[in-house]
Amino acid sequence: MTDLPTSVEIHEEGPREGFQIEPGPISTEDKIRLIEALAETGLHHIQACSFVSPRIVPGWADAEAVIAGFTPQPGVHYTALWFNGNGLHRALAFRDKLTITGSIALTASEAFTQKNLHRTHEENLAKMREQTRLHLENGVQVVRLGIQAAFGCNYQGDISPAQVVKTVADGLAIAEDCGATIEIISLADTMGWAAPQRIKRVLGEVRSRWPDKQLSLHLHDTRGRAVANAVAGLEMGVSRFDSTVGGLGGCPFAGQKGAAGNICTEELVLLCEEMGIHTGVDLDKLIEVGRMAEQIVGHVLPSELIHAGSLDAFRRKAA
Amino acid sequence: MTDLPTSVEIHEEGPREGFQIEPGPISTEDKIRLIEALAETGLHHIQACSFVSPRIVPGWADAEAVIAGFTPQPGVHYTALWFNGNGLHRALAFRDKLTITGSIALTASEAFTQKNLHRTHEENLAKMREQTRLHLENGVQVVRLGIQAAFGCNYQGDISPAQVVKTVADGLAIAEDCGATIEIISLADTMGWAAPQRIKRVLGEVRSRWPDKQLSLHLHDTRGRAVANAVAGLEMGVSRFDSTVGGLGGCPFAGQKGAAGNICTEELVLLCEEMGIHTGVDLDKLIEVGRMAEQIVGHVLPSELIHAGSLDAFRRKAA
Repeated sequence: MTDLPTSVEIHEEGPREGFQIEPGPISTEDKIRLIEALAETGLHHIQACSFVSPRIVPGWADAEAVIAGFTPQPGVHYTALWFNGNGLHRALAFRDKLTITGSIALTASEAFTQKNLHRTHEENLAKMREQTRLHLENGVQVVRLGIQAAFGCNYQGDISPAQVVKTVADGLAIAEDCGATIEIISLADTMGWAAPQRIKRVLGEVRSRWPDKQLSLHLHDTRGRAVANAVAGLEMGVSRFDSTVGGLGGCPFAGQKGAAGNICTEELVLLCEEMGIHTGVDLDKLIEVGRMAEQIVGHVLPSELIHAGSLDAFRRKAA
Repeated sequence: MTDLPTSVEIHEEGPREGFQIEPGPISTEDKIRLIEALAETGLHHIQACSFVSPRIVPGWADAEAVIAGFTPQPGVHYTALWFNGNGLHRALAFRDKLTITGSIALTASEAFTQKNLHRTHEENLAKMREQTRLHLENGVQVVRLGIQAAFGCNYQGDISPAQVVKTVADGLAIAEDCGATIEIISLADTMGWAAPQRIKRVLGEVRSRWPDKQLSLHLHDTRGRAVANAVAGLEMGVSRFDSTVGGLGGCPFAGQKGAAGNICTEELVLLCEEMGIHTGVDLDKLIEVGRMAEQIVGHVLPSELIHAGSLDAFRRKAA
């Protein structure tokens, strides 16, 4: 009846998403403490920082200090985010510590591309072609294609599956032109428009056209549906998810101040484990890290689970 | 592939659940204001108060004043909750204004029955038999069987579907003994243990044994899975749900202070409408009532949607 995966790969983006949006200031030490604690939970992919302009994102002005400062765990991939050549070169300075691969980042909504990036989709394609070449020239593989606003957009409304398919095709064409091989297509519900049926429909359309690509979901809980959408993704066989511990992060987009951000890592882990899907994560440890994240940012985080506690803790008491 | 209903009946329990748990004090006027605003949204079932001991639940010491005070809307059923003869008689004083029917309330967890009610399951059956008779003697039909902790329990751990089936059978036997006809079996995830697959399994077992009964779900978002569990219920054809506006209420049970309470009405409505399932509710109005509830209780409520706003508002702007 379903294509449930046997295991999932979770990409923890809490440090990067969280510390770019928190009003702060959050100390470099606290950022390092969170990254190191996350690496103790069994998570194998941690996005540790953004190499972006400190003028635009003051919360990541200390990106170099954070990356230099943490002690890496063997077997854990630490990644970073950047948007231009300057960011790439800042990341490459840490190529011994970071797993460095490139992405082609497109948006299924023309209106969002213009609002968020101040360029048209066509101009964005040119920019991505240039950036892909730059990565390859620097010996960095470009293996991931990310599509933002793949399920709807605050500025454009509903986004059709056909529009998503067209945007994926545009991205794959860039990769082919430049000689890059995309392995992963990541679909992002950037502004919380997705519902389970829509998730299934869009995934189905993309999967049927590109059956050899791995699909990944980046879900936001803006309207409380992230976990339900994750179930829909799992039922379609998706085995890669981005998430943030405690639900760190938020939604910087129009009219949604105060809205929730990414799906919480611990709620995703609980969901998967209760469905018999292996995550490799120690949930009780992860819940403790969620509570640490809440202390670090100094306000209540959206995660329900860090306030309720895991089921296994109650099972042990009841036994 | 699924048994999705074409429409759902939503039982709004925000006033009753919310005001019994808030530290307060919340004025009688505010309680009335919320009940009257809910009745303007298209909701047809509103649980307006608890007739319980003011010593145990001080938040509902003004139940009579609230029920006397609100102006009813035609077509809206206002209900109340009570646990004994005294509560029933207090409710019957408002039989012109309230829709008064009785419930048989059981718990699938023996440990929870003892902790919460201070009696054994056997003693609870005797109590429910007595209470069913009392209702019928007072001309009140007993049409609903509610099973608490139907998916797991903080004190007992996992609850097997067989245990739920046995508890339902116990309740139906009481009804038959007393000459009552149960129409609705309500399964409650009282402490947030349910996951989508478990929802489907338990509903399937109950439905296959009693195919003529309507099934209803009372879901809590204790671990962030209420909406995903609602999807599972909808896919099994469930068309009755309890919920609370804004996610009013909470979880008074062991080790879960600060955890979320019921599924949010507005997130349930959004979910259903986006799945093509009719609710009859004006979502934008309901979101405004959720914001009003947040103002009344004076702290942030768990609903993400009241902070993000509906999709239709963005669709109208984008059009």
